[in-house]
Amino acid sequence: VTLPRTYTAGDLAERFNLELYGNPNVKIKSVSVLKTAQPDQLAFLANPKYRSQLSDSHAGAVVLAAEYRNEVRHCALVSKNPYADFARIATLYETPESFISGTHPSCNIASDAQVHPTAMLGAFCSIGARSQIGAYARLEAGCLVGEDCVVGEHTKLNARVTLVKKVIIGKRTIIHSGAVIGADGFGMAWDDNQWIKVPQLGGVIIGDDCDIGANTTIDCGALENTVLEDDVKLDNQVQIGHNVRIGAHTAIAGCTAIAGSAQIGRNCLIAGGVGIVGHIHICDRVTITAMSLVSNHIRKPGSYSSGTSLQETKLWRKNTVLFRRLAQSNTSKNLSKSMQDPVQDG
Amino acid sequence: VTLPRTYTAGDLAERFNLELYGNPNVKIKSVSVLKTAQPDQLAFLANPKYRSQLSDSHAGAVVLAAEYRNEVRHCALVSKNPYADFARIATLYETPESFISGTHPSCNIASDAQVHPTAMLGAFCSIGARSQIGAYARLEAGCLVGEDCVVGEHTKLNARVTLVKKVIIGKRTIIHSGAVIGADGFGMAWDDNQWIKVPQLGGVIIGDDCDIGANTTIDCGALENTVLEDDVKLDNQVQIGHNVRIGAHTAIAGCTAIAGSAQIGRNCLIAGGVGIVGHIHICDRVTITAMSLVSNHIRKPGSYSSGTSLQETKLWRKNTVLFRRLAQSNTSKNLSKSMQDPVQDG
Amino acid sequence: VTLPRTYTAGDLAERFNLELYGNPNVKIKSVSVLKTAQPDQLAFLANPKYRSQLSDSHAGAVVLAAEYRNEVRHCALVSKNPYADFARIATLYETPESFISGTHPSCNIASDAQVHPTAMLGAFCSIGARSQIGAYARLEAGCLVGEDCVVGEHTKLNARVTLVKKVIIGKRTIIHSGAVIGADGFGMAWDDNQWIKVPQLGGVIIGDDCDIGANTTIDCGALENTVLEDDVKLDNQVQIGHNVRIGAHTAIAGCTAIAGSAQIGRNCLIAGGVGIVGHIHICDRVTITAMSLVSNHIRKPGSYSSGTSLQETKLWRKNTVLFRRLAQSNTSKNLSKSMQDPVQDG
Repeated sequence: VTLPRTYTAGDLAERFNLELYGNPNVKIKSVSVLKTAQPDQLAFLANPKYRSQLSDSHAGAVVLAAEYRNEVRHCALVSKNPYADFARIATLYETPESFISGTHPSCNIASDAQVHPTAMLGAFCSIGARSQIGAYARLEAGCLVGEDCVVGEHTKLNARVTLVKKVIIGKRTIIHSGAVIGADGFGMAWDDNQWIKVPQLGGVIIGDDCDIGANTTIDCGALENTVLEDDVKLDNQVQIGHNVRIGAHTAIAGCTAIAGSAQIGRNCLIAGGVGIVGHIHICDRVTITAMSLVSNHIRKPGSYSSGTSLQETKLWRKNTVLFRRLAQSNTSKNLSKSMQDPVQDG
Repeated sequence: VTLPRTYTAGDLAERFNLELYGNPNVKIKSVSVLKTAQPDQLAFLANPKYRSQLSDSHAGAVVLAAEYRNEVRHCALVSKNPYADFARIATLYETPESFISGTHPSCNIASDAQVHPTAMLGAFCSIGARSQIGAYARLEAGCLVGEDCVVGEHTKLNARVTLVKKVIIGKRTIIHSGAVIGADGFGMAWDDNQWIKVPQLGGVIIGDDCDIGANTTIDCGALENTVLEDDVKLDNQVQIGHNVRIGAHTAIAGCTAIAGSAQIGRNCLIAGGVGIVGHIHICDRVTITAMSLVSNHIRKPGSYSSGTSLQETKLWRKNTVLFRRLAQSNTSKNLSKSMQDPVQDG
Repeated sequence: VTLPRTYTAGDLAERFNLELYGNPNVKIKSVSVLKTAQPDQLAFLANPKYRSQLSDSHAGAVVLAAEYRNEVRHCALVSKNPYADFARIATLYETPESFISGTHPSCNIASDAQVHPTAMLGAFCSIGARSQIGAYARLEAGCLVGEDCVVGEHTKLNARVTLVKKVIIGKRTIIHSGAVIGADGFGMAWDDNQWIKVPQLGGVIIGDDCDIGANTTIDCGALENTVLEDDVKLDNQVQIGHNVRIGAHTAIAGCTAIAGSAQIGRNCLIAGGVGIVGHIHICDRVTITAMSLVSNHIRKPGSYSSGTSLQETKLWRKNTVLFRRLAQSNTSKNLSKSMQDPVQDG
């Protein structure tokens, strides 16, 4: 990591409003993790799992909660939210990307597209008819923007992002490489002896401050739009079907798939590999654990799961046989009765 | 949505052979959904879940089954297959894409490739040795076609599709952005202390009228070909291993993965997030529900599932513990006996 | 398949040190599978499932284990590892790719990037500042290499691979189309009422002889590096989170997702659709079966699984209801007692 600048622990405490315990003159040249940090590096403790590494860490300073402040060798920077404050400090040590406004000569820009003079377009970008690229937007090499798209101010498309058509993106959003936004939804009608394609006429609206992971796909709406509100965070290889709506501040981990017309609330935390079937409503503040399947509405905030947990394959095989026969085998009064109750998911 | 033309409800009834109830002179300028449709818009009712929206809808006309024809405010267009007929009508209201035959000057075409003069190639396309692009085929920007490929007449590759090599595609097929077709299958042999790559010598054959989703991957065959018959529909982020064969009219939803040499029948409906292990045979007319794992042959048409359903995480944890101990804990006569039966999957 | 050369069965036996039973003069012009092989083709038997095809096969020669040598019609080539030896032989019959050192004129190379004169770069490649492309490396069309990357000798990037930044790749590694390596990890901290991005400052280190599948994503490390040791094999659409480390010779099938900071041992076999949660340690020589979820450390070599197995949907529904009520319904002494035991996963 190239070092753009050096700060003292005292500088950092003052700038980020943290309480300092220890020598304020310790020089911090970069950031690291507890285990490998050197005396000129800053580390942090957010996950209590790593607490045992505190006393052995050579870090010059550590951002942590007040309760651990006496367990560091050198300097402690006490924070109410150590991970968030570490994130803010780490930004100081990022190598700043060079930003040079202008369009690479290899780009292919439609005559009626509007590219703001302050925007930066790398090699082999293509901008379709009627599309607009906002002020200080940054498109790395190989971004293909189709017709009728808008890329907001300060939004960044990493190398090789595709906006197919009618994709409107807000400000300060980041789209990672390989993402495809605005492709046709999976809409077709069965007609006697073949499929008929249902025209996908809608677009995609993405808010401000969103983050869309690498190779993630977000389909256009069929008749209305697919919508991501502000500050939605999607990891890599997430799949969002047509007409889905995702509420503000919801974060979704890798490889999760959300089928068409599902509505996800605000401030949800959806783990990786989750499946959400079509036309489902999930209320605000719901957590779904990894690889769960959501096939009914969820109307109450809380944490939900499905699946089974890992065990040795040999024993697991026997249990799966018994699972398949639960209903058949079980004749106890308790279970028979429970079968008659209406099933309430979520 | 730009409006290419206006039709009256009567025009639509006549053109698509639908029974009309109400005023045939209602002007329909575009299509929408029941909930938000305006008096100059057409909507439809296919999923009975949305029936309650009929009476409140302002739609100028609604395509629906005969039984609901009296529940609309304005005009009813009665159909035996409302979704299919709506799809056909909606096509009238699509903004027609401009099609201009010719090759963008930035393209890189091998000297022995054949591009039909009526085909359309966008910016930054590359066509490899001996490949053929058929009449009226459309390749959007950034499509990379390797060696020995064929793109059939009227087939469309959206922006940034990659055909690696030996990929033969039929007529009127649509491939969405980011799809990679013809990459090497995952073939390797363990040899004492390292992996040896097994050469992947086959190709991929894709039929007519197929639809391949964004960022979907279809590997080439190892020795034979990977084959998709006509009218196969794959959603986004589907993974198809080497030597797989998929029967005509089968539809597969997002994020489903099919391992090498599996054979899927015709007219199957495979939901999202499903896993199908290698060398499995699935007969015609099989439905697999979301996130199921298929690890044995399926020889009887019908619907199959695996997994468990969603519940609160706290209670789920307890149940997963009990699942892991089903075989160990259960000593009842019923279950012991069932363990001795041969297990029949699917 | 174009035939580069013809060998006799005797040539092959000698060259690959195999015992020959039958006529050594049989001419072998290409490779195939037992079922369709012709008298001038070589086939193999590795999976005993296909043994019944031996006696009917017209293959001119078959690579197989000694015990089956009398079941072939023509020539047997006896091997201790038939699949590995077949793989080696098949390499002789691959159409050799033409390799022409040099850079296509459409490429965009940073002034301080170093491209070895023996390397081959196809159309529309872009090489960022300070990146190095090694001797005999091959980049097919549309590869985008960002800043501070290294592509080792004889390494091949297929069409449209993206190395975002700080990606160091060893020798003889193959990366398939659509892979995105070095995108930002999914790191963010919740701060009162919005997410804060945690800078992702690390890189990705990939060893020698690795294979990375189509549309696979490997994120850069947050503070340290994401690491794949030598001879790691990843199938298509695999997702590797930030800071993950994967031991040498481990193979991972399609659509598996590994969350941040997980550590996978050497010589592991991880099937498709598996999920591994963050910060998990898996020891060497572990097998995970398809679509399992790993949410605890695994400290003992062996095979592990989770999930349930497939059955008719109608019956499955009843069983999932009973699963959800296992803890509630079960009051037997056995199960109550088992609930008090500490749970040991893996």
